[in-house]
Amino acid sequence: MIKVSIVGATGYVGIELIRLLQQHPEVQIKDLISKSNANKKLVDVYPQFRGSKLEKQTLMAIKDFKPEESELIFTALPHGVSQDISFQLVKSGTRIIDMSGDFRYHEIDIYEKWYGVEHKHPELAKKAVYGLTELNRAQIKEAQLIANPGCYVTASLLGILPLIDSDFIKSDSIIIDAKSGVSGAGRSLKSNLLFSECHNTMKAYSPAVHRHSSEIEYILNEFLRGSYDNRSSKKRAEVLFTPHLIPIKRGILATIYLDCSRKSSAREIYDLYADFYGEEKFIQILKDELPEVKNVAGSNFAQIGFKYDQRTDRIIVVSVLDNMLKGAAGQAVQNMNTVFAFAEDAGLEATALFP
Amino acid sequence: MIKVSIVGATGYVGIELIRLLQQHPEVQIKDLISKSNANKKLVDVYPQFRGSKLEKQTLMAIKDFKPEESELIFTALPHGVSQDISFQLVKSGTRIIDMSGDFRYHEIDIYEKWYGVEHKHPELAKKAVYGLTELNRAQIKEAQLIANPGCYVTASLLGILPLIDSDFIKSDSIIIDAKSGVSGAGRSLKSNLLFSECHNTMKAYSPAVHRHSSEIEYILNEFLRGSYDNRSSKKRAEVLFTPHLIPIKRGILATIYLDCSRKSSAREIYDLYADFYGEEKFIQILKDELPEVKNVAGSNFAQIGFKYDQRTDRIIVVSVLDNMLKGAAGQAVQNMNTVFAFAEDAGLEATALFP
Amino acid sequence: MIKVSIVGATGYVGIELIRLLQQHPEVQIKDLISKSNANKKLVDVYPQFRGSKLEKQTLMAIKDFKPEESELIFTALPHGVSQDISFQLVKSGTRIIDMSGDFRYHEIDIYEKWYGVEHKHPELAKKAVYGLTELNRAQIKEAQLIANPGCYVTASLLGILPLIDSDFIKSDSIIIDAKSGVSGAGRSLKSNLLFSECHNTMKAYSPAVHRHSSEIEYILNEFLRGSYDNRSSKKRAEVLFTPHLIPIKRGILATIYLDCSRKSSAREIYDLYADFYGEEKFIQILKDELPEVKNVAGSNFAQIGFKYDQRTDRIIVVSVLDNMLKGAAGQAVQNMNTVFAFAEDAGLEATALFP
Amino acid sequence: MIKVSIVGATGYVGIELIRLLQQHPEVQIKDLISKSNANKKLVDVYPQFRGSKLEKQTLMAIKDFKPEESELIFTALPHGVSQDISFQLVKSGTRIIDMSGDFRYHEIDIYEKWYGVEHKHPELAKKAVYGLTELNRAQIKEAQLIANPGCYVTASLLGILPLIDSDFIKSDSIIIDAKSGVSGAGRSLKSNLLFSECHNTMKAYSPAVHRHSSEIEYILNEFLRGSYDNRSSKKRAEVLFTPHLIPIKRGILATIYLDCSRKSSAREIYDLYADFYGEEKFIQILKDELPEVKNVAGSNFAQIGFKYDQRTDRIIVVSVLDNMLKGAAGQAVQNMNTVFAFAEDAGLEATALFP
Repeated sequence: MIKVSIVGATGYVGIELIRLLQQHPEVQIKDLISKSNANKKLVDVYPQFRGSKLEKQTLMAIKDFKPEESELIFTALPHGVSQDISFQLVKSGTRIIDMSGDFRYHEIDIYEKWYGVEHKHPELAKKAVYGLTELNRAQIKEAQLIANPGCYVTASLLGILPLIDSDFIKSDSIIIDAKSGVSGAGRSLKSNLLFSECHNTMKAYSPAVHRHSSEIEYILNEFLRGSYDNRSSKKRAEVLFTPHLIPIKRGILATIYLDCSRKSSAREIYDLYADFYGEEKFIQILKDELPEVKNVAGSNFAQIGFKYDQRTDRIIVVSVLDNMLKGAAGQAVQNMNTVFAFAEDAGLEATALFP
Repeated sequence: MIKVSIVGATGYVGIELIRLLQQHPEVQIKDLISKSNANKKLVDVYPQFRGSKLEKQTLMAIKDFKPEESELIFTALPHGVSQDISFQLVKSGTRIIDMSGDFRYHEIDIYEKWYGVEHKHPELAKKAVYGLTELNRAQIKEAQLIANPGCYVTASLLGILPLIDSDFIKSDSIIIDAKSGVSGAGRSLKSNLLFSECHNTMKAYSPAVHRHSSEIEYILNEFLRGSYDNRSSKKRAEVLFTPHLIPIKRGILATIYLDCSRKSSAREIYDLYADFYGEEKFIQILKDELPEVKNVAGSNFAQIGFKYDQRTDRIIVVSVLDNMLKGAAGQAVQNMNTVFAFAEDAGLEATALFP
Repeated sequence: MIKVSIVGATGYVGIELIRLLQQHPEVQIKDLISKSNANKKLVDVYPQFRGSKLEKQTLMAIKDFKPEESELIFTALPHGVSQDISFQLVKSGTRIIDMSGDFRYHEIDIYEKWYGVEHKHPELAKKAVYGLTELNRAQIKEAQLIANPGCYVTASLLGILPLIDSDFIKSDSIIIDAKSGVSGAGRSLKSNLLFSECHNTMKAYSPAVHRHSSEIEYILNEFLRGSYDNRSSKKRAEVLFTPHLIPIKRGILATIYLDCSRKSSAREIYDLYADFYGEEKFIQILKDELPEVKNVAGSNFAQIGFKYDQRTDRIIVVSVLDNMLKGAAGQAVQNMNTVFAFAEDAGLEATALFP
Repeated sequence: MIKVSIVGATGYVGIELIRLLQQHPEVQIKDLISKSNANKKLVDVYPQFRGSKLEKQTLMAIKDFKPEESELIFTALPHGVSQDISFQLVKSGTRIIDMSGDFRYHEIDIYEKWYGVEHKHPELAKKAVYGLTELNRAQIKEAQLIANPGCYVTASLLGILPLIDSDFIKSDSIIIDAKSGVSGAGRSLKSNLLFSECHNTMKAYSPAVHRHSSEIEYILNEFLRGSYDNRSSKKRAEVLFTPHLIPIKRGILATIYLDCSRKSSAREIYDLYADFYGEEKFIQILKDELPEVKNVAGSNFAQIGFKYDQRTDRIIVVSVLDNMLKGAAGQAVQNMNTVFAFAEDAGLEATALFP
């Protein structure tokens, strides 16, 4: 049993971490830190935790938090805010899994350009390890600070990585059309997140300029240049990414368009996925069918299907996951399991909640 | 580890049982029987089970099923259909938990009147034990055939039972206004269950004549006459019940109106609930707040809140649960745990999935 | 053509009024007053008005508004706020239709008790005319200040009024269980109105203490004592009202429980409705079926169905309407039509938008 | 006033036509033909028409229908079925607007290949006129048989046509990622259209092989070769189209990706749209913002926005419309208005229903 704390415990990612950790066989939840709800009882803010182990847990202000008493801390804070807090927490020597965008880039200028803020701790960012488990397991095991990937990014990378370095894929003309449920936007009080504004409608937003664009492209390029294995590809990735807001609670569906430089086949493409993921527990490659959000919502699984269109020489990849789980808290727990050598699916065994 | 099978495995209740049982620490799923999908692989009908222990499970026709090889069988069949099949299965000596309405009444004439069908095995119905766990735990432990309660019925009874025999409650003028998500209607192909017909609308249906009316009233009267404990009340229950269809997937909210024969207080009423449920794991009584479906959806918990209105001498009770869990499959597993003396919440530890 | 202005034009009721009025054959929209969006173009706040007559309309600050230049002003403001503004506007001599609760009560103490605020202009409230068109048409025609009814109140009164003074109905034990879509809560930034908090769940709120309780009961008692016709009943109304929030955009469904003092029949009850409403354009009484929200959402119609339950001596009335139309802006336009002797359905001819 | 009939009146497109036509100032609805509901009253099938002019209308079997008594007939039938029926109706000399895919292609082999059925009346298909009003107004005015476009097709073409023949747009690498509400799938009883299967989830379907792919590509090529004006372009269109099912009732959002062969600018692109659509009533081009479904749902408007991404040399076009209106029945009425020289927006003046 390890002692785990969460800083930023009452945002949606925070409570998803709580939900998972309170049933984790190897974890004892220690402190739950919340700025907006300090000193309240958790069950008074989120009544779904009545009847759980956390029935009596009180939320803590960060000034009262002693990081060295935990063996792992999840920081679930807005980007910008996380820079300083994680910097302070790292000093305690405790391992950190950070859910924000603040430590996902070793190239600070890319971060600063796309996020529009200065990075105060670039040296720490350069030491952070990118937490896409299936991509970077070896480094994750040794990391003190893990930068957990963005939700759109996880869905996109899982669909693209197995193909991008193949000889017949054009890596520099990738289009990602992604659709997300509303929980991905968090609990902030914005009029465009009101039920009456979101329900029974949909929209595109931030086309070509969403921050996750840069993260997808950056990680693909790191991958091609060998940062996660021994490869050294001459290819370079360029990504056009358009997110959409869809009136569901949980779930991301990324439709990815890849150009081919020669004829291929469904079999060849399937084999690339199968080789890349092998026995990966949480990645499911579908043959001759496409995934739906309901297959994975409530679980840590990602499902990937594809269609090879010989007529237009393109591959359409469809990648789905639950943005709160494999897209955020679930992958964070998977990373924790990796770090502490627990079973990788400990606490993550649930299948999708359907209907 | 016990071996458990499900007859009617591919309806919504069937797959919810599968979802729960495949992660249950004491259960091995043996056979999954399906009429409509026999000989198909489960994952080809319900892709959410990819990656689970049931990845390779094939659905079985009932003619190939050997009930004596299981230690427990769940029958998740339409009422009417379940009568015969459960009758046959009982002969094997295996314990049965039946999800239909067929064995919930010892008084067969009530069943026949409200269900509009003849009961072919009334003697078996009389031996069946009603499976509202918190009400009937002692008998459930010894039962061979457990009749699992209806979803509306569970929500209603949990809210009414602690009060009905009190001196100041009028038991014969109970009004229940219940609202259910659409999953409660199952997967049948009816035009009124299409998305375009259900979404963004709501309706009442079967006011005063829904079958669950009779079940609620029947069990309340059984309770008053002492069938579940040693009481012998002279009171008699009469219930007016109106269900409504609401465009959510899971969840029942029952708003119950009780007349008082004298002034009472919130304190007195709370104490009745607290006394009745004591340390019950799955029943949560709220003080000074009302429950919402999101607090329990995805969990086996029921939450009950109430408002005492001195002005009109009435109590408004609000009872919520997940119709697939405490309202169906979850309670069935709870009953299984009771029968086999497993921890009552084994396999049922999940808190609500929110957001 | 009359000139009409709206004060509070960019709330949900305000824009619904705009939507209706811009297509009204007898109306020219003059000024649109908005505190939060003054000096912006309407289409920049609500892009659905592109392509309409209001394409170029700019929102006005109230300090620039000259009420005497309009022949009718709709005030769509929060209660409390409307008291003063309507008081000022009335001085201009222009007719006012007020959408708030501020002028619905002649008995100021009831208002002050249930709304928890002092009324600064009680003498004006006493002169205001209650705007349930079908109940009070004669007075509406002559009114300078019309208090447009609450949404829940309209749905409830339409279902109850035809029966309440009948010899076999107990008027003092009425229970109303009402369900509303989220648009009824307006556009205010509250976390409980976020999509992620409302979707796929439901809840009861303010049982027995919601302000509309008092409005329903007050108007029923005014009706019984003859304020709207020549009757003089000795009956007195008492109402228990519980609202619920349902994840749809538009629509109210009120389920009303009435006790009978003797046996009645569906025929007798139907005749009471038929007599009361006669040729009313917007009220539809259903025989042998129940209404659904989708039958009326997008239209100014109310549909009422009922079930007489001989077993429990009760009538279950189900009344549905669109909270934005017959429950607010539609009824306000109907009142305008009445005042100016336009066809009562001018601008209100739409049938429900389905699917 | 012209007499208009509908064959296939009780499908979703049929009732949307009824909804529009019953308020049309120049139309008298004559006969409503329905196979599945012949001899029933319309209001017994669709209660939302209570209170309308159609209160007493009875649905007719086609054998009783005399087409020569109408001046226009809408055929709202499944493809395949419409071939023969429209062929018979055309003989009467009455004008026909056909909602199916059966008469949208002059090149019958494309139809037969993508629809997988033989065309029995190719000569009639060759005489039919394609009914995208803004594209083909001159021919529509003279047509006897108008083939009303598909819903996805209308959204896609409206976004692409103004740009495709420009010197800097690559016409042969168009990607369309389209999202549709569920009403587009009609009222057929398929399990994948049940509320419990569609709600709170999303999916892609028929990537690259959906029939609307071929219609979009075919019409773009017809346009390039000058079938609708005097142009004669050497360009050729190739389209990759992927539709998605989204849990809303009405609305299509098409995200279109166009490659540029040289640097362009938002200004240049906006001017292309502005030139192409000029004073078109129903087409709205947005500057510096993107459209949302809620801006148009319930109206006949299409809104188009775009983002020029200099980094990747691509244009992202977002086109939205209501699939029941501009995507089906609304455009059909617009075509009727064009044929009979009514105001083009007669009966189509509604703005979006929001919230």
